[in-house]
Amino acid sequence: MAVSTKVNEQLKPSLKALEVPCRLLLGPGPSNSHPEVLRAMGLTALGYLDPAFMQVLEDIQALLRYVWQTKNETTLCVSGTGSAAMEACLANVVEKGDVVLVAVCGYFGNRLVEMARRYGADVRIINKPWGQSFSLQELREGLQEHQPRLLCIVHVETSTGVLQPMDGVGALCREFDSLLLLDTVTSLGGVPIHLDEWGVDLAYSCSQKALSASPGASPLTVSPRALQKVAARQTKVPNWYLDLSLLQKYWQTPHQYHHTPAIASYYGLREALRVVTDEGLSACWQRHQDSAEYMHSELEKLGLTVHVEKPWRAPTLTTVRIPDGIDAKALAARLLVEDNIEIGNGIGDLAGKVWRIGLMGHNSRREVVDKLITGLRRTLG
Amino acid sequence: MAVSTKVNEQLKPSLKALEVPCRLLLGPGPSNSHPEVLRAMGLTALGYLDPAFMQVLEDIQALLRYVWQTKNETTLCVSGTGSAAMEACLANVVEKGDVVLVAVCGYFGNRLVEMARRYGADVRIINKPWGQSFSLQELREGLQEHQPRLLCIVHVETSTGVLQPMDGVGALCREFDSLLLLDTVTSLGGVPIHLDEWGVDLAYSCSQKALSASPGASPLTVSPRALQKVAARQTKVPNWYLDLSLLQKYWQTPHQYHHTPAIASYYGLREALRVVTDEGLSACWQRHQDSAEYMHSELEKLGLTVHVEKPWRAPTLTTVRIPDGIDAKALAARLLVEDNIEIGNGIGDLAGKVWRIGLMGHNSRREVVDKLITGLRRTLG
Repeated sequence: MAVSTKVNEQLKPSLKALEVPCRLLLGPGPSNSHPEVLRAMGLTALGYLDPAFMQVLEDIQALLRYVWQTKNETTLCVSGTGSAAMEACLANVVEKGDVVLVAVCGYFGNRLVEMARRYGADVRIINKPWGQSFSLQELREGLQEHQPRLLCIVHVETSTGVLQPMDGVGALCREFDSLLLLDTVTSLGGVPIHLDEWGVDLAYSCSQKALSASPGASPLTVSPRALQKVAARQTKVPNWYLDLSLLQKYWQTPHQYHHTPAIASYYGLREALRVVTDEGLSACWQRHQDSAEYMHSELEKLGLTVHVEKPWRAPTLTTVRIPDGIDAKALAARLLVEDNIEIGNGIGDLAGKVWRIGLMGHNSRREVVDKLITGLRRTLG
Repeated sequence: MAVSTKVNEQLKPSLKALEVPCRLLLGPGPSNSHPEVLRAMGLTALGYLDPAFMQVLEDIQALLRYVWQTKNETTLCVSGTGSAAMEACLANVVEKGDVVLVAVCGYFGNRLVEMARRYGADVRIINKPWGQSFSLQELREGLQEHQPRLLCIVHVETSTGVLQPMDGVGALCREFDSLLLLDTVTSLGGVPIHLDEWGVDLAYSCSQKALSASPGASPLTVSPRALQKVAARQTKVPNWYLDLSLLQKYWQTPHQYHHTPAIASYYGLREALRVVTDEGLSACWQRHQDSAEYMHSELEKLGLTVHVEKPWRAPTLTTVRIPDGIDAKALAARLLVEDNIEIGNGIGDLAGKVWRIGLMGHNSRREVVDKLITGLRRTLG
């Protein structure tokens, strides 16, 4: 049978095969994928119920439990980028009118506020200036005043490069009968994390930062305590794609179809996690710390100042103050075009005040820092 | 500084590098990615605001407008699989209490019902048996009775392999002042589509069926008429990740950050669309039609019966009745393990009654049909 040939060919673009410049990605993410990840991304697909793909799911779960240091049964990934995993946490646990307390000291704290509100939460906020973290006492006062069902904390703020200390926070949340949510987008794989020991109930991350995978499959873990809150919901989760009960049915045997997962991204995440595991968690954390400290000292030699005070610095993301008289965006644009090196501009309260430099995953190495410093020295003139 | 070395190594899995069997994917999707797509998936990432990536976004938009045959300015993809694009359509256009009419003749019609309900729609349903499509008169009666704000139709039902004729439906919707949503998940690239001519207001698709890309970046297009409904919303879209106004700000100049997109999946979608465009739309549609007709006649030679009557058969997905005395699931499992060929089992009303065989994208070729028939002949015994 002849099908329709009536096509508006004026809409037809004429394009060549895709070629992309080879950038060194030292912004706030994505980082460069590990070569093993790139290899995996090019493997042929499997069906979403193929036994060989079920094994990939199992691998991802076990690997995530290790890098997060958790025994949570419900540990999986969603077929979306980090913000989808953030939304999955909030959508499943928040019900209309729930008091949610968000500790905001940067852009992604504000994102949690915005998202929780869309799910009907009664959102309360405690604030710190961008570049600082919260003390245990400040968190205690927030919990005392607002008596929330859920406290949301960003482990490493991608907008500031601050690492929030987590010792004692879980115990505090139990004292006030609050769940504890931790954003580990810019910390997973690059910073010591002990989810179970810290008493974290909900955590999520992305794949394209310290894990060096491609964005598109984002980790999520939920404690038994948080699952109780989900099970006690009076209403259906108002988000079908990210409904945890449907996701669980797919991830658990007998693997009931929900949606087609982002298969290649799952391959990539599995390989990225496997590479971290081969290196060993402690070694991987130490490498991130060492290369960040090396970069900080090299930046200082260039006369630049790291924005965050030493005890709060995250090894994965560094904010660097822009010297007087420098057009920050123009410099970053030149570094990108002339040296194929990406660094990030400041956002929110730090827009125009800092650059954001990521040393994440496979990129967190001394020779990468040297390349950056060479480029910066030349570009600063 | 020495970081924490206190790691529970008992959680550490010991895994080898990922290897996957090379399956011929003839189920309901994913299909095998085109080699050009696999090449693109392995390219190094770009930052989400890199000018070179902004060009990828522009390419995707232009290519999608061609394959959908639409001039819609708002034509983009979301960082998720097909169901995320489905949810994006409903989440943005539906407000609490809106009457939404869904034409249900298969599994994915029911998914639209379930999703629309989660967004507070007053959902009304018209039904047809699984294996049939709706006449214009039946759609008219539905619109007349329910007076909906939105009519939802599945172009090709992946559960049945039925192609819904679309001539005249757009005019009908205008007569009743209803928006028209069309699910093109199993039709885009494989079946003639003329969105603008048909008066479709919202359409979405996936990447892993007739486009032969990897799942993870899913097309979405919205007409000016539907955008008016979105702009007139009284409430914020209750889904942050899929909020169209935020997505538009990212896709349009000056490209405001929303979330990190699924970069490699965007590369893959861009290449898949470019390959379709190189072939030409008419030629691509005709190839799908020809190889489906060839398969149908070859299946009949094996003594098998195609479930759907000829005029309603979609070339992309064929439901084949299971002969008496055959254990359908066991046969599909054997075909997978022994021949590395995946076909799908029936779902919903057709569970246990049919197999689902996809001939989509790069797989829609005569030599692929021959491989399948050889495998089936041997397995049927």
